Amino acid sequence: MLSVSYVGEQRLEVKEYEPKPPAAGEVQIAVAYNGLCGTDMHILHGNMDARVQLPLTFGHEMSGTISALGNGVDGWNVGDHVTVMPLWWDNTCPACLAGNQHICQNLDFIGIDSPGALQGKWNVPAETLVALPPELRLDHAALVEPAAVAVHDVRRSGLVPGDKAVIIGGGPIGVLIASVAREFGAEVAVIEIDAGRRAQIEALGFTTISPLEVDQVAWVNEWTADAGADVVFEVSGAAAAVLGATDLAKVRGTLVVVAIHPTPREINLQRVFWRELTIMGARVYQRTDFEKAIELIDSGVIPAELLITRIVPLSQTSEAFADLAAGKAMKILVDVAGQK
Amino acid sequence: MLSVSYVGEQRLEVKEYEPKPPAAGEVQIAVAYNGLCGTDMHILHGNMDARVQLPLTFGHEMSGTISALGNGVDGWNVGDHVTVMPLWWDNTCPACLAGNQHICQNLDFIGIDSPGALQGKWNVPAETLVALPPELRLDHAALVEPAAVAVHDVRRSGLVPGDKAVIIGGGPIGVLIASVAREFGAEVAVIEIDAGRRAQIEALGFTTISPLEVDQVAWVNEWTADAGADVVFEVSGAAAAVLGATDLAKVRGTLVVVAIHPTPREINLQRVFWRELTIMGARVYQRTDFEKAIELIDSGVIPAELLITRIVPLSQTSEAFADLAAGKAMKILVDVAGQK
Repeated sequence: MLSVSYVGEQRLEVKEYEPKPPAAGEVQIAVAYNGLCGTDMHILHGNMDARVQLPLTFGHEMSGTISALGNGVDGWNVGDHVTVMPLWWDNTCPACLAGNQHICQNLDFIGIDSPGALQGKWNVPAETLVALPPELRLDHAALVEPAAVAVHDVRRSGLVPGDKAVIIGGGPIGVLIASVAREFGAEVAVIEIDAGRRAQIEALGFTTISPLEVDQVAWVNEWTADAGADVVFEVSGAAAAVLGATDLAKVRGTLVVVAIHPTPREINLQRVFWRELTIMGARVYQRTDFEKAIELIDSGVIPAELLITRIVPLSQTSEAFADLAAGKAMKILVDVAGQK
Repeated sequence: MLSVSYVGEQRLEVKEYEPKPPAAGEVQIAVAYNGLCGTDMHILHGNMDARVQLPLTFGHEMSGTISALGNGVDGWNVGDHVTVMPLWWDNTCPACLAGNQHICQNLDFIGIDSPGALQGKWNVPAETLVALPPELRLDHAALVEPAAVAVHDVRRSGLVPGDKAVIIGGGPIGVLIASVAREFGAEVAVIEIDAGRRAQIEALGFTTISPLEVDQVAWVNEWTADAGADVVFEVSGAAAAVLGATDLAKVRGTLVVVAIHPTPREINLQRVFWRELTIMGARVYQRTDFEKAIELIDSGVIPAELLITRIVPLSQTSEAFADLAAGKAMKILVDVAGQK
């Protein structure tokens, strides 16, 4: 059986390993597909070396089929199509006790803090399983995890039908947020620098803005009859985007911080004060987000087919990351079941 | 009749003027007391020269007695004790139409954008009047406006009984927020650099933290059993305070931006994301905040007597500002009715 691990010094290794049977309370999944995401790229680039234990078999956007059940696992059968909500909380910290298990103060994010899905057979606690509809294609189902991020971001924003939402950054998460926000009844505009991405996003029926060619504040003010956007999603991770984002929001509007900003960013707090803006962080997801994400992919609301740029064998994982880093792909899946 | 105006170049002028009778829809108030606040100091220091029209008779924390009624004013009588909610909105902008008149996109803040209360007889629209209980001392009533700011900040924070709140900055607004938050059922700690202010705040029964002597993050973690504060109020205006504030808040905690930050500030967005924090701006007040503020001062919950450092005649307004700038006073009132 093959797995892909980050071994340090910005290098991946594909290697043979011997799968273990699932422990009590675990299931073993025959992984079908695993999507590569920005966090995985941060791991590969060494940005998370202080957090991860080497070698790390990573991967957390996946789909698969149950191949074995550990002792004491009820309600699941070998052959079930599943994905995994890769969060493991301690249930004892103040955040858990307050009902925020998904951002437990000692969260184990499976695939970062413990082994992930880039391996042929993967053991996970049964509690992390999420059932997939049998008819949902397993390649499409590998998008459930990032789609759940988007559902969580939109739910947390408080967006309501009729709202106008601006999404800064048109990568996979930005496009997923756009799709979810539109489905939730919002009008959406996506700010994206890259012309190729803008074309892809427009092909999905979204309005795009090129911030280098258009005065984005004037554009949003005209679009909203001088009110400003109800909700702004910051998905770019760029310092300049954060500084400008507050100028796009209406009085009492909301700016959702979706992207990772590893260093402190300048924010226009005068504008936050003046317009009584709300800035909120949104991280990962809750089970309801996974279930909604599955529904939106299964129904075609989220255009999985168009978001998956290509599917590569395990042996081409490094090349796939190089393409993602160069902005040459939206979403690339690794065909883990194919094992070559 | 005397007034105090900012005449530019960081100078005030006390001068004679001839009061006008109130226009239709206005009342004339014989101003009793006017408190001096941080915004007034910004005006005096020239920081708001681009906004204000010179000469500007300023002042907006006041109490007084109705001295004349313009045509068409109903429901008020000469002799009524009143204060003024110094906001005048256009009722037509998107913010007003959405119910946020208090932060109208074209707000006239009376006392900044139009003449204020540092004059013996002051004409204001009758709609801005707020009735004072006859037994409430007029010097104490001059604190209603800043107390309404504090009520608004606490209401907007979503604070609930049993919460632990940290207030960064123990000036008048910080102490008023502490008083309101305690009355609303919170446990409160105030972070304040100045030892003299800390002593005053402790005399009011509040816990204080000296951020230069104590590790404030460790202190808050111990105080909250490793959860973090439910609500953090940033009232200091200091860049370092903003950068550190996010480390004090619990998972899904709230940071309220009360202070004015004229230039962009660095914020730890990684922490905002990681803990799903909410940062919200809170500006001025709504009528309900004024009514609650009056109730809290009238009942003694807000310790007006202890917050008023001294009362000065009109002629000593400049000296009073100098003391405020030097941190030598909490709140100084000008005895406008005394007229000397």
